[in-house]
Amino acid sequence: MANLDPFFRPRSIALVGVPTGFKAGKVFLLGLLDQGFAGPVYPVHPHAAEIDGLRAYPRLLDLPDPVDLAIVMAPRAAVAGILDQCAAKQVKAVVLYTSGFGESGEETGRQDERLLAETARRGNFRLLGPNCMGIYAPANGLAPFPGMPRTPGRVAFLTQSGSLGNLFTNACARMHIFMRHVVSYGNACDVDLPELLEHAAADPEVRLICSYCEGVRDGGALARALARAAGRKPVIFWKVGGTQAGSEAAASHTGSLAGRENIWSAVFRQHGVLQVSDIEELLDTVAAFHHLPWTGEGRIALVSGPGGPLVSAADALERYGLTLAPLEARTRQMLREILPATGTSCRNPIDVGLAASFDLDQYLRTLAALGRDNSVDAMVVLGGGVTPEMNRRFVQGLIEVRRDSGRALLAVAFPGFLTDEALLEPLGLAGIPVYPSPERALRACAKIRRFAEFSRRTAAGKDTHLRHGW
Amino acid sequence: MANLDPFFRPRSIALVGVPTGFKAGKVFLLGLLDQGFAGPVYPVHPHAAEIDGLRAYPRLLDLPDPVDLAIVMAPRAAVAGILDQCAAKQVKAVVLYTSGFGESGEETGRQDERLLAETARRGNFRLLGPNCMGIYAPANGLAPFPGMPRTPGRVAFLTQSGSLGNLFTNACARMHIFMRHVVSYGNACDVDLPELLEHAAADPEVRLICSYCEGVRDGGALARALARAAGRKPVIFWKVGGTQAGSEAAASHTGSLAGRENIWSAVFRQHGVLQVSDIEELLDTVAAFHHLPWTGEGRIALVSGPGGPLVSAADALERYGLTLAPLEARTRQMLREILPATGTSCRNPIDVGLAASFDLDQYLRTLAALGRDNSVDAMVVLGGGVTPEMNRRFVQGLIEVRRDSGRALLAVAFPGFLTDEALLEPLGLAGIPVYPSPERALRACAKIRRFAEFSRRTAAGKDTHLRHGW
Repeated sequence: MANLDPFFRPRSIALVGVPTGFKAGKVFLLGLLDQGFAGPVYPVHPHAAEIDGLRAYPRLLDLPDPVDLAIVMAPRAAVAGILDQCAAKQVKAVVLYTSGFGESGEETGRQDERLLAETARRGNFRLLGPNCMGIYAPANGLAPFPGMPRTPGRVAFLTQSGSLGNLFTNACARMHIFMRHVVSYGNACDVDLPELLEHAAADPEVRLICSYCEGVRDGGALARALARAAGRKPVIFWKVGGTQAGSEAAASHTGSLAGRENIWSAVFRQHGVLQVSDIEELLDTVAAFHHLPWTGEGRIALVSGPGGPLVSAADALERYGLTLAPLEARTRQMLREILPATGTSCRNPIDVGLAASFDLDQYLRTLAALGRDNSVDAMVVLGGGVTPEMNRRFVQGLIEVRRDSGRALLAVAFPGFLTDEALLEPLGLAGIPVYPSPERALRACAKIRRFAEFSRRTAAGKDTHLRHGW
Repeated sequence: MANLDPFFRPRSIALVGVPTGFKAGKVFLLGLLDQGFAGPVYPVHPHAAEIDGLRAYPRLLDLPDPVDLAIVMAPRAAVAGILDQCAAKQVKAVVLYTSGFGESGEETGRQDERLLAETARRGNFRLLGPNCMGIYAPANGLAPFPGMPRTPGRVAFLTQSGSLGNLFTNACARMHIFMRHVVSYGNACDVDLPELLEHAAADPEVRLICSYCEGVRDGGALARALARAAGRKPVIFWKVGGTQAGSEAAASHTGSLAGRENIWSAVFRQHGVLQVSDIEELLDTVAAFHHLPWTGEGRIALVSGPGGPLVSAADALERYGLTLAPLEARTRQMLREILPATGTSCRNPIDVGLAASFDLDQYLRTLAALGRDNSVDAMVVLGGGVTPEMNRRFVQGLIEVRRDSGRALLAVAFPGFLTDEALLEPLGLAGIPVYPSPERALRACAKIRRFAEFSRRTAAGKDTHLRHGW
């Protein structure tokens, strides 16, 4: 089988069936223009002579030059003929946006989808879709939507839902986390998740692999692909369709067979895959792996001014399989010197008390002491000052603790603390992920702990870069 | 026992031990000034003649006029003497902020706490605390922190964590949800949660009762109090301390015995209490009960442009015990007319497809049709337009559907949709709660369904106001 390169690094692109007006299919053209794709882009339209300033051609075969990638958004009835032209034109890769195949629930749809795959095989091209948005790869000027970031990063997102690729990418960008690539692969009649996972696992520029998956055709291939990444690159997996309602929704969305939940779970356990169950958990997990070292035994120091959230956080910590760092005797002694005798607790979880919001040094000296404590793998801090100016100083102090200690530090923007967006940006840039609750920060810590533990158990754990974070 | 009125409607307040400088205890004075408390406020301080423009008195007994409520923030060693003065002065209610009693972990602390309660009984006053912030009641000008809203509402929040009272109130205010009162009751040596629950259940101005609780002294009294509210007012309970780590944190925070988790769960089940496990779930639940009718059988219509989140939402829906509304034949026919034939799904969950973001009528006509379908209890919608102007029109359309149908409508501000804060405000004001993911919207729907079901099973269900929402 031909490799996937022409999807990610095409020298030229044809847009077959691009609409003349402001309709959904237009996003492909807008996306390429927005990214400034360097090669030629050829609109193909049966009647238009020109679309958005680009010369249009009536048929793919009318194009004067060779085409690496064809993005096809033509009506359902025209698709078979266009794919034949792709073969004749020696196109190397096809993204098929058009839907109404396997996901239609009708036998003709399923049959036609099988024909698409056969046409691709016979025509010697690879096919992504149908019913997909294709590739976002900012390093190569590719995007299936306008308004996506131009900055390339080191996260790969492999998704059966194209819109989710767009939404996830933009949500990550707001946290200054960027993508190596996003692949929306829809019904997966030819290129499916296992091959995309292998590709991402082999790409040295990809550090973190995320997947939104409704089902997969070849379970054995999936397991082999996961084994390649296991313990080396975190694989964060949002598998949906595990319920009756969900599996029916998956069938009508991408024609996927969602499969038995317990089989998926067993495969995930075997390969150290980190499972998430909604967009928030996915983003929370990505933020943790992006910012924090992939090490430690999950020994956490919890620090808060408000005492209530600490109790709830301690519950969450235990339920997530983490432990409260025991703290060294020296640290406990320092905390007793830093904090007032009443209204506080120097045992972990550390309640710095209401007074610390008036005297930020109590927070910051506490964190500095914890940052030197070898029983602490990560610190989760909830709090802040009582004025915007104090909050700025608090943020600066957190950044110094993170830098000086090198230790994982997670901040909580609890209602009433650090709610000013302007404060969150410097935290992110300094390697401090911010969570809306201590529970969510801890859930992310638990993912890192699980990955670190899995890596230690596998050969991958012997790689130096994993022991010290990437 | 004297009733709790003097806590909520004092005619005069003494602040005993209020600091002269910018320290934590100052928040009590700042809070009262900020709310414009109408009665006299008397600072009591051993040396200061005046604090922040108010005449100060050296001792409580030096005050010329009677005092209903004393808020005591004096040092630990002075507390016993001050409480004796409260008795002599015939103060009716005392809020004791000072900490270092039962939560200290030392036997003297526990003993002294028992003495506090005895002093209150003998002195014929009620005591809130120690280690608490006391009362926020904006209708009567009371607040233990500055910057809290002056607008009274119909939510009661009973909390062992004072800071949480402040943070919760401010987070609700951002959703235009306001409090009847917040009671921070700390170690609860005299007034405890059961009495506060009875009080809130009996107050006709209180519509919704929320609790953050680490432990309670009298389990039988708690069960009786819950029985009074059961099925009439939703009781949303954030019980913490259920793990080993959590129970230890609770002991050092408020000296509470967290108790066995399964006993609490049994009591909650028996009385239809709605349990939550973090601040987000608490706020999500409050928003749902504030905005939506407390009715229905949990039959949900899910509507989205992006198809991926729909599959995950369908999973969540089933796991939360909700059902996909089957839709009437008439509705299904209308949806087939409204939506394009491909890239969409007219079965519930309803995938309106990417095209709907370019033609909002496809969203809005779909919702209008669902709003007339008697098989639908609530609609959860995820999506929006591709420009800010289209998003404004989308929001206006949602408001019209909510108004015309009277049906519960929950909006999802998924990453990339409705992220503009300015759009969220009109939704809230129109009775449309907004959630960051469909999963969280559905979790809130499940709470309403549980309450509606419990109410139907109890006598309370016969009240007309419950059948039709409040």
